[in-house]
Amino acid sequence: MTSSDSAQAAPQKAPAKDPWDLPDVSGLVVGVLGGTGPQGKGLAYRLAKAGQKVIIGSRAADRARTAAEELGHGVEGADNAECARRSDVVIVAVPWEGHGDTLAALREDLAGKLVVDCVNPLGFDKKGAYALKPEEGSAAEQAAALLPGSRVTAAFHHLSAVLLQDEAIEEIDTDVMVLGEERADVETVQALAGRIPGMRGVFAGRLRNAHQVESLVANLISVNRRYKAHAGLRVTDV
Amino acid sequence: MTSSDSAQAAPQKAPAKDPWDLPDVSGLVVGVLGGTGPQGKGLAYRLAKAGQKVIIGSRAADRARTAAEELGHGVEGADNAECARRSDVVIVAVPWEGHGDTLAALREDLAGKLVVDCVNPLGFDKKGAYALKPEEGSAAEQAAALLPGSRVTAAFHHLSAVLLQDEAIEEIDTDVMVLGEERADVETVQALAGRIPGMRGVFAGRLRNAHQVESLVANLISVNRRYKAHAGLRVTDV
Repeated sequence: MTSSDSAQAAPQKAPAKDPWDLPDVSGLVVGVLGGTGPQGKGLAYRLAKAGQKVIIGSRAADRARTAAEELGHGVEGADNAECARRSDVVIVAVPWEGHGDTLAALREDLAGKLVVDCVNPLGFDKKGAYALKPEEGSAAEQAAALLPGSRVTAAFHHLSAVLLQDEAIEEIDTDVMVLGEERADVETVQALAGRIPGMRGVFAGRLRNAHQVESLVANLISVNRRYKAHAGLRVTDV
Repeated sequence: MTSSDSAQAAPQKAPAKDPWDLPDVSGLVVGVLGGTGPQGKGLAYRLAKAGQKVIIGSRAADRARTAAEELGHGVEGADNAECARRSDVVIVAVPWEGHGDTLAALREDLAGKLVVDCVNPLGFDKKGAYALKPEEGSAAEQAAALLPGSRVTAAFHHLSAVLLQDEAIEEIDTDVMVLGEERADVETVQALAGRIPGMRGVFAGRLRNAHQVESLVANLISVNRRYKAHAGLRVTDV
C-alpha cells in the first residue's frame, strides 16, 4: 500500500519558494573522480559539452589527461587530489569497491566542496544484479561519514553510460533524482543536471533515503535485459 | 557509478519472445485484500472500471460490502478469506503493520493463487518517511516466505491513492514495476496493470530486488511535498 499521499496532509514546512527556481551554475568547475570509467567519462562529456568547466580525476594523472584529450570540450585531467582541490563541485563516480578508501584519502582535498555521489553498491551473480547494503546505509551516507568537511549529495544514479558516451545522441530522456540535506546544495546539483539536454534534476529526499535510489539500478539492469534497452526514469506529475 | 550497461554484455538468457506479448487477463477475478483502504480501494475502482471482475476483502465482510457498493462497477465485498478463495489474482494492499499476520492466516485460502504484493514498509518521523527493512528483505519476500503454495509477485507500489480514487481522472500517467520469479506470472500482472488507462506494466526484476522498489515510496513522498504533486514513475527507453 502506498503511503505517498498521506504526507500531503502534514503541515507544509517547505518555504514557499518555487522549486524550479534554480541557481546559475554555469561558472562552477566540476570535478569527476573516477572520470576515466564509463559513467564518469560519460558525465564529464555531457557536462563539458553543455559548457561546464570539467576536470576529470583518476589515480593516475596520465590516464586522466589521456581521457580528457579524447573528450575535448576543454576537459582537463589530473590526479584525484588535484581534481578535487581545483573543483567547486566533485562528482564521485568511482567503483563501489574503491569508494570508501578513495574518499578517505581525499578528505582534506574535498573539504568545503559540494560532493555528488553517484555510486551504486551492487553485487552480481548468475541471476543478475542485487543490492549491497553499505554499513552506513548507502554509498552517499558512507561519503557523508567519511567527509565531515564536505557537503554531500547523491545524484546521477540511473544514467546509462552507453547513452552518455554516445556522441550521436543529443538528448538523454531522463530525470535525475537528487538527494541531500541542504536545499541550496540540492538545487545546485539539480541545476547541473538540467544543463544536459533532456535531463531534469528533481529533489527526491534526504540521504537516509539514498539506498533505494542507488540500488534501483539492479532493477534497471533487469529492465535493460528484458527489453534490450538503456532504461532511465521520469518522475510524473512533477 | 551506474553499472546498468555492463550487464548488456552478458549472455542473453531471456527467450526471444516479444516482451510486450502479454496474456489476455480479462476473464480473471481479482481480489484486493485491504480493499477498504485508500490504495486497495483505488486499485479496485480502476480495475473494475476497466472491466475486470473485482472482489474487495476486509477483516469485516460488512465493511468490504459497503465499500464495494460505493465503488459500483460490479465490485463485490467479502471477508479476506472468501475474497482470496474466490479470486484468481489477489492483490495485497494491507497496511505493513498487519502484513505478516494477515497473510499467515490466509495461507490455505491463497494456495494456488497469483499474489501481487503492493505493500511499502515505511516508517515516519518528523523528517518524513524512511524505509523499513523487513527481516525477509522486503514485504514481497515476506509474502513469499509465508505463502509457499502461492505464486508471489510485487507491483503497484508507486501509485497515488488520491489519483486512483479521483473519478474525474480518466488516465493515470505512470508505469507499474512488476517483480517476480516466473515470467508467466509477471506477465499476467503486467497485463492487469495495462488494463488501466495510462498505465503500463514493466518487468523490473526478481523479488530479491523488491526492497528498493517498495521503499522508493519514501522518496516519492519527498517529491510530493516539495512539488505539491502526486508523483509516479515512467521507465524511459522501454
